[in-house]
Amino acid sequence: MNSVKVGLIGFGTIGAGVANILLNKREQIRQTTNADIELVKICDRDITSDRGVAVPREIMTSDLADIMDNPEISVAIELIGGIEPARSFVLRALESGKNVVTANKALIANCGKELFDRARELGRSIGFEASVCGGIPVLASIQSSLQANRIESIEAIVNGTCNFILSEMESKQSAYSDAVKEAQRLGFAEANPTLDVDGSDSTQKLAILAQLAFGVAVDWKTVSRVGVDVVDAIDVRFAKELGRRIRLLAVAERTDAGLALSVTPTLVAEDSALAKVSNAFNAIQIVGDFLGPVFYQGWGAGRNPTASAVCSDVIDAALGRAKITFDALHLWSGQRKGIPVQSATDIQSRAYLRFVVEDRPGVVAMIADALGKRNISIESMLQHVEENGDQRVASLIILTYAAPAAALDSAVQEIEKASFIRGKSVRLAVRD
Amino acid sequence: MNSVKVGLIGFGTIGAGVANILLNKREQIRQTTNADIELVKICDRDITSDRGVAVPREIMTSDLADIMDNPEISVAIELIGGIEPARSFVLRALESGKNVVTANKALIANCGKELFDRARELGRSIGFEASVCGGIPVLASIQSSLQANRIESIEAIVNGTCNFILSEMESKQSAYSDAVKEAQRLGFAEANPTLDVDGSDSTQKLAILAQLAFGVAVDWKTVSRVGVDVVDAIDVRFAKELGRRIRLLAVAERTDAGLALSVTPTLVAEDSALAKVSNAFNAIQIVGDFLGPVFYQGWGAGRNPTASAVCSDVIDAALGRAKITFDALHLWSGQRKGIPVQSATDIQSRAYLRFVVEDRPGVVAMIADALGKRNISIESMLQHVEENGDQRVASLIILTYAAPAAALDSAVQEIEKASFIRGKSVRLAVRD
Repeated sequence: MNSVKVGLIGFGTIGAGVANILLNKREQIRQTTNADIELVKICDRDITSDRGVAVPREIMTSDLADIMDNPEISVAIELIGGIEPARSFVLRALESGKNVVTANKALIANCGKELFDRARELGRSIGFEASVCGGIPVLASIQSSLQANRIESIEAIVNGTCNFILSEMESKQSAYSDAVKEAQRLGFAEANPTLDVDGSDSTQKLAILAQLAFGVAVDWKTVSRVGVDVVDAIDVRFAKELGRRIRLLAVAERTDAGLALSVTPTLVAEDSALAKVSNAFNAIQIVGDFLGPVFYQGWGAGRNPTASAVCSDVIDAALGRAKITFDALHLWSGQRKGIPVQSATDIQSRAYLRFVVEDRPGVVAMIADALGKRNISIESMLQHVEENGDQRVASLIILTYAAPAAALDSAVQEIEKASFIRGKSVRLAVRD
Repeated sequence: MNSVKVGLIGFGTIGAGVANILLNKREQIRQTTNADIELVKICDRDITSDRGVAVPREIMTSDLADIMDNPEISVAIELIGGIEPARSFVLRALESGKNVVTANKALIANCGKELFDRARELGRSIGFEASVCGGIPVLASIQSSLQANRIESIEAIVNGTCNFILSEMESKQSAYSDAVKEAQRLGFAEANPTLDVDGSDSTQKLAILAQLAFGVAVDWKTVSRVGVDVVDAIDVRFAKELGRRIRLLAVAERTDAGLALSVTPTLVAEDSALAKVSNAFNAIQIVGDFLGPVFYQGWGAGRNPTASAVCSDVIDAALGRAKITFDALHLWSGQRKGIPVQSATDIQSRAYLRFVVEDRPGVVAMIADALGKRNISIESMLQHVEENGDQRVASLIILTYAAPAAALDSAVQEIEKASFIRGKSVRLAVRD
């Protein structure tokens, strides 16, 4: 029997889920895994509010030292989120001789190298399964089961809020703002959903996946990023007309020119597995050179699925598996020969372009010319004319063949300066 | 660096895939996992045929002792399939101090207890990821990532041959026999496909899943089993009319009356994830009490995906993770408190019944009566009349609400004795 004592830092939604598992399923876990995991301290500034979990009064503390200075506690779970003070707490836990488990993608994406280097120096491990795709055990898969493969590509829906918004716009023909409100009402979106809807959250998760799958340390802020906040109801409708759905895809793809990383609302074929991911589900498709495609779907967030992932890391730490994996992968050490990351402007992709234009002759010719002279080939074009007050305004949709982002940017900029433009243009990606 | 020497027993299709990975990706694996895995011997009766992989002449042997008696070899990979001599070879490898990796579901399903007990006595481990769902890393997930959960149910498509046949019948309106021929032509079915199409293969895999997920040791031969060989083109068509698809599902489900295990062609809703699994893909949906549903899809067979799974087990053995997992789970030890397995006759399920009847008054009333007096409620009924020579024959389809297998059996038996019956009846399952 592997017995460990655990301290939990941060008693919010996920913390309550973790406490619920560790306190109420201790016997089940002992029976099925040979690990006896005792939650001995929970630290939070607020130690009195009811979180819906019965917690013995004496294990609650607002003094972090009760965890850090207790040498019997060998695993510290960090669930406060954000960078500081989470970063300092994790460093302190490692320095106090504890292994760390965290669900904090911002922390790992921003401070991965610092934390992992320090853990290596101190002979400790960091588990972070819950930081990407919540309950879906995909980081464990990449870290062990897929290790015989060279990973060719990852396409992932890693933000449940955005997927809910897009599903809602699709199924109810809602406006973007109404879909956001509905997501907030149901608890799928924060009061301020910016970090979700602008793609930041997805990009941080993609950066973590890129390190695991490709050995690449990437500053997530440099990754090509478009959020769902640019998607209009009309784009969802046009996508449908084109036999497609819009999903916010985080993509990492090995190309001849290096690793292409992007987060963009993307038109995917309606019969693809990713198109069928609805509501707040997450999903990830990984292609390995030997494995071929493997597809995972599950809850990417929420108290219980995330707590399940956190606890699997705690069990791994208790059994000693976490340390083996941690040492074997030397993540963020720079030791693994990664592949060069393509500059965002060089990434080739097919594009969906929507221009709002005055409905008059010559418009299509000018747009086609702006694309053509940059070697951007048009696959198809759709036009919808609407009466808009006293003006006839048209939405012009163009699907292009693959072209570099720089060429697409420059073409769109030129077109946007034309006198016939009557609104904001939109550029999404298209994938098969 | 963890260095291990490996011996491979069985140089067929999968063996060639494994040799390809271990010989040609050694440096990649060393770099990404810290494990240096050297394939030092391959044993097969045939050591001269070309398997499409360049193998140094000196590592080929037809003498098993070259592996068994080499104390430097710490991992033996068994890929000969079937029970004997695979069983003896695995025992001999364990007794020679080697950890074992196998892709052999028949061996694990039939001899799990004997082999795992022996491995425990000898302090060795057995890895068997490739035995279920080929390349999909689902056994690893159940063995580690999902450990904080009580698993509520598993619904799985674990036989690619059957899924190909059903997909083919669906997309091309093929007869069953034509779909089998096409599967054989494309290499998805053996010359003698009996063990696939009669559900035996799926049932063996279900027995392995039941041990991992529910701690239950079940004799696969006692599990309720219907193969795809009972499915007719007409059933595929009727299923479609009902907004459903037929998939061969292996199901393990926790119920108040115990664990319900079954393998049956099942009508699933056409918009469900399982309905969308096409071709020779495998898929598995697992519901955990905290995790909720998690769904996996990938190649369940074939040289490369299976070799990927085998090699992940070899890496796990090399790193020492396999031993930890093996010791923690005490599989087939009887130590874990499993749940009672429901008798096949008690299992409740919704049913799809098809009767071929003479088209005359009174038939429906008699069938409805046979069901009604056993408390089997009818959810819906469909009738299709066909001219069949000089006779008018009708196919009568009935979807029932949930009823115990025994009641359904007895009703069908009674109905089949009626004078209006003009052909074989079919009974499939229905799930939401």
